Amino acid sequence: MKIEGQSWKTIWIDESYCVNVIDQTLLPHKLKIKKIKNGEDAYFAIKNMIVRGAPLIGVTGAYGLALSIKLDQSDEKIQSSFKLLESARPTAVNLSWALKRVLNKIINLPKNERFIKAIEEANLIAKEDIWMCSKIGDNGLEIIKGIYSNRSLENKNKPINILTHCNAGWLATVDWGTALSPIYKAHREALNIHVWVDETRPRNQGSSLTAYELNGEGIPNTVIVDNAGGHLMQNGLVDLVIVGCDRATSSGDICNKIGTYLKALAAKDNKIPFYAALPASTIDWEIDNGVGYINIENRSSQEVSHISGPDENGDIHKIRVVPKNCKCLNPGFDVTPSRLITGIITEKGICKANKESMKSLYLK
Amino acid sequence: MKIEGQSWKTIWIDESYCVNVIDQTLLPHKLKIKKIKNGEDAYFAIKNMIVRGAPLIGVTGAYGLALSIKLDQSDEKIQSSFKLLESARPTAVNLSWALKRVLNKIINLPKNERFIKAIEEANLIAKEDIWMCSKIGDNGLEIIKGIYSNRSLENKNKPINILTHCNAGWLATVDWGTALSPIYKAHREALNIHVWVDETRPRNQGSSLTAYELNGEGIPNTVIVDNAGGHLMQNGLVDLVIVGCDRATSSGDICNKIGTYLKALAAKDNKIPFYAALPASTIDWEIDNGVGYINIENRSSQEVSHISGPDENGDIHKIRVVPKNCKCLNPGFDVTPSRLITGIITEKGICKANKESMKSLYLK
Repeated sequence: MKIEGQSWKTIWIDESYCVNVIDQTLLPHKLKIKKIKNGEDAYFAIKNMIVRGAPLIGVTGAYGLALSIKLDQSDEKIQSSFKLLESARPTAVNLSWALKRVLNKIINLPKNERFIKAIEEANLIAKEDIWMCSKIGDNGLEIIKGIYSNRSLENKNKPINILTHCNAGWLATVDWGTALSPIYKAHREALNIHVWVDETRPRNQGSSLTAYELNGEGIPNTVIVDNAGGHLMQNGLVDLVIVGCDRATSSGDICNKIGTYLKALAAKDNKIPFYAALPASTIDWEIDNGVGYINIENRSSQEVSHISGPDENGDIHKIRVVPKNCKCLNPGFDVTPSRLITGIITEKGICKANKESMKSLYLK
Repeated sequence: MKIEGQSWKTIWIDESYCVNVIDQTLLPHKLKIKKIKNGEDAYFAIKNMIVRGAPLIGVTGAYGLALSIKLDQSDEKIQSSFKLLESARPTAVNLSWALKRVLNKIINLPKNERFIKAIEEANLIAKEDIWMCSKIGDNGLEIIKGIYSNRSLENKNKPINILTHCNAGWLATVDWGTALSPIYKAHREALNIHVWVDETRPRNQGSSLTAYELNGEGIPNTVIVDNAGGHLMQNGLVDLVIVGCDRATSSGDICNKIGTYLKALAAKDNKIPFYAALPASTIDWEIDNGVGYINIENRSSQEVSHISGPDENGDIHKIRVVPKNCKCLNPGFDVTPSRLITGIITEKGICKANKESMKSLYLK
């Protein structure tokens, strides 16, 4: 996708087998490339959210494992790199999925063939991710088109207002994104859309990344605080909600950025369609009840108490937004029960958020 | 209430008829008194949120009108001061209510009697506000006691978790507060309580004022982002929600800080009692349907895009938290429909959020 007119991906490998990523901790204030040269670099990049978003984390993990194999092809080192990388973000199921894919491809090969095969597999995961996200976009586009064609003639020229939470855009994947992919596809088909961007406290991935992405592609958008979405829905200003998903259950519950549940409640209360967009690999077929069963990580309380950004001279400051010695709690995700979800958009198609309909995806 | 061991009120008049207020724009980082010497000062203090909270705005307006009468007792000047002050915050019904009380008391008096009578009336409004808030606390305390006595023996020693949104504490009134008054009363009766404090973007009145108040009184509390409340409720970590209210309808809808509606939805979904605490003067008997009928002010988008606070050296910076040239929308309030509200706590008693029950308050 585009930043200031230029096309980018979030991750790419160069001829010297160095992996390059956009450092997302510096966005939207600075566009800087970070080089990943080994497994430890990849662990650090995932752990410190230089890369974030379930699909991109998976791809970064896969490349990280491949790079560690470049330096040491022994079973012991490969196993320890695998464990280190897997521990970087416990909630993201894609990470361990991608790591296992690489491991399974190479573990029975002779040592001298392992690195090239691992890189090939990581490249394939990245390529598949682009294809999947593009396909999610094509499938989600049909929902937006449906809203447009159901409109009365006098409302056809009004923008379709789509609300999204957090960042499930191309910056969370390799390209296209998940929740934003249908939006990019709609924009390319010249549909008149406008996006409400939840700022998504505490890390503000909405205001820093989603707004930045949409601005890059020239898509009209407005940042709102996380408190505002319900009011907009109540007043007819939202036609559709699309969010991403870090983990889905086989029954259609979704675990996503903290606050998603509140928006789903408001959508339900106002009869607004609420969709989660995700690659089918995000579905955890072994869990059928999200609330209380998915382990929610409590992140650092500093993410609540402090915030960074540039002053009017462009100098970055980290400031405190709570009283001194204040206690904060920072759960990173919440679970939205399937009863609040209109449907799940995947690369394999759209299904309802229930066991039977989810199963049809599994079998595809 | 107490700040660092000392007792304070938010507003008081000294012997030279100068009105003193705590400058709430500097809290929690600095405790500074602002002097109000005339009607324009009072207008400025309300408009720029040096004072905030519906009851305190009303009292400040009343004193402001009295101070303008000190300088000029003519009908024309009184009327123009009235209009100026009334325009400072259009959503707060208390402001125009308090201004009318002062005006009605003095407008038929000879000019030389007007000032003293106006000051007397403003003093009376302030005194009544303290009494009312204390009474709201006594009434709300019964709800907390009820939760305690309904607990099984093994749960008696666990804290009662109360979630609140924004700041409806003593800083929003003259003393005691509305939503926090029952909490102060419970703490004084040595009930084991813990408060979840929504930070309340965009102005962060929760993390800056509510946490500051509760810390001053030594009440255990934890700041969370506005996104987190639903997750806590889903996981049994909230026993009760109490919020304030800027305006209530005769049917029991409440207009309160943006985001209140989302918390009410989550409380309903998890069968957690949700109360609004307010002086009966906050009820607008002429409106019986809040959604779409109460005019919601869109405040400056700078409140969303920028935030201030101290760095580690205590130097205050104003930083930008969105990309450059980003569009933001900032609705200040939302309406929570009565169907989501368990009850309304007022100085006259607790009633259900419906027409018949609300009417019983009116007649008291």
